[in-house]
Amino acid sequence: MSDRSRRIPEATVARLPVYLRSLAELLEDKTATVSSERLAEMAGVNAAKVRKDLSYLGSYGTRGVGYDVEYLAFQMSRELGLTHDWPVVIVGAGNLGQALANYGGFKERGFPVAALVDADRAKVGQLVHGVPVHHLDELPVLKERLGIAIGIIATPAVAAQDVADALAEAGIGSILNFAPAVISVPEGTSLRKVDLALELQILSFYQEHRDTEGV
Amino acid sequence: MSDRSRRIPEATVARLPVYLRSLAELLEDKTATVSSERLAEMAGVNAAKVRKDLSYLGSYGTRGVGYDVEYLAFQMSRELGLTHDWPVVIVGAGNLGQALANYGGFKERGFPVAALVDADRAKVGQLVHGVPVHHLDELPVLKERLGIAIGIIATPAVAAQDVADALAEAGIGSILNFAPAVISVPEGTSLRKVDLALELQILSFYQEHRDTEGV
Repeated sequence: MSDRSRRIPEATVARLPVYLRSLAELLEDKTATVSSERLAEMAGVNAAKVRKDLSYLGSYGTRGVGYDVEYLAFQMSRELGLTHDWPVVIVGAGNLGQALANYGGFKERGFPVAALVDADRAKVGQLVHGVPVHHLDELPVLKERLGIAIGIIATPAVAAQDVADALAEAGIGSILNFAPAVISVPEGTSLRKVDLALELQILSFYQEHRDTEGV
Repeated sequence: MSDRSRRIPEATVARLPVYLRSLAELLEDKTATVSSERLAEMAGVNAAKVRKDLSYLGSYGTRGVGYDVEYLAFQMSRELGLTHDWPVVIVGAGNLGQALANYGGFKERGFPVAALVDADRAKVGQLVHGVPVHHLDELPVLKERLGIAIGIIATPAVAAQDVADALAEAGIGSILNFAPAVISVPEGTSLRKVDLALELQILSFYQEHRDTEGV
């Protein structure tokens, strides 16, 4: 697995969770096989790209039948490292951090929120939706004790870089940034950014053209 | 504009905000021109795709010089409908709704949060970061009075479909769903979904392969 996986292009990796979500829907509907065309339609890409992406997983489907949904979902989960849990720490116990701690989609998909962390000592010791709040200084201890794999930055923009530094220093190698700020991380640390306004811009495109064209 | 824009592929539309964000960074650095290679690198796609995407906007760049950053950003903003504001209503005044009402990235990019709405009458009349909370039943009135263009669903999963129905009935034609639920909307309504766990799955891929391969 390791040699092959290292060569999977970043853009393909970013599409795997989208395919996996489509496969989960198919499994719910008890669909046994799926064509690359159908999967492409569900994921919003073209069929040739689906076939190419899945070939990186060693999956080629069967002509005239398609892909086995259950097996493909298993392969993809294994490749994405979703066959076990990845405990998460959320930094920032404000509204966003609290909302994320309560977000149903994390735990059920293998990302239990193990701790919240905040720089404000007044918040330390509180329970947020059952998750304890610790002080930012405790990150290294929490990392060891709870096996934290991923840190989520849910602070105001101005604090984001300091928090990223603290996460990296604590040895937490994967960071998801929700703060509307550009941050940098040391080499070897994975960084992804959620830009909440991006989807709004896509919607405004369609709204703009609907309004002006009467579609 | 209208004839051309209607033919822009969905996948290209989804990349325009990513390019625009890169262009904003270049403008901040007072960079006057950008090559398709550089823009591709910033946006995480390949250069041929950038050139193809920009050609839909009627932008072809100048050989050996590249694209004029400021003009390209203007073209893209116009195409995305970002030359004017799109007032937003957030449905659900819980932690997530409150966090979104306070999210700095919305207003500064032309999506002012005009109102929060909740089904709980006890919350009506409150101010959340300066945004008033109204009852869900007031959606049609708010739509007319505030010119609401986009509705954001920030409720628990179980309420999401009812909220989507209420937004569509109120004539709000664009919906962004944050609830971890699959919902359907009437034809003519635009729907986008923010899946907060998706980015975590991408991070777990890299963490998994780093852990198992010692990279």
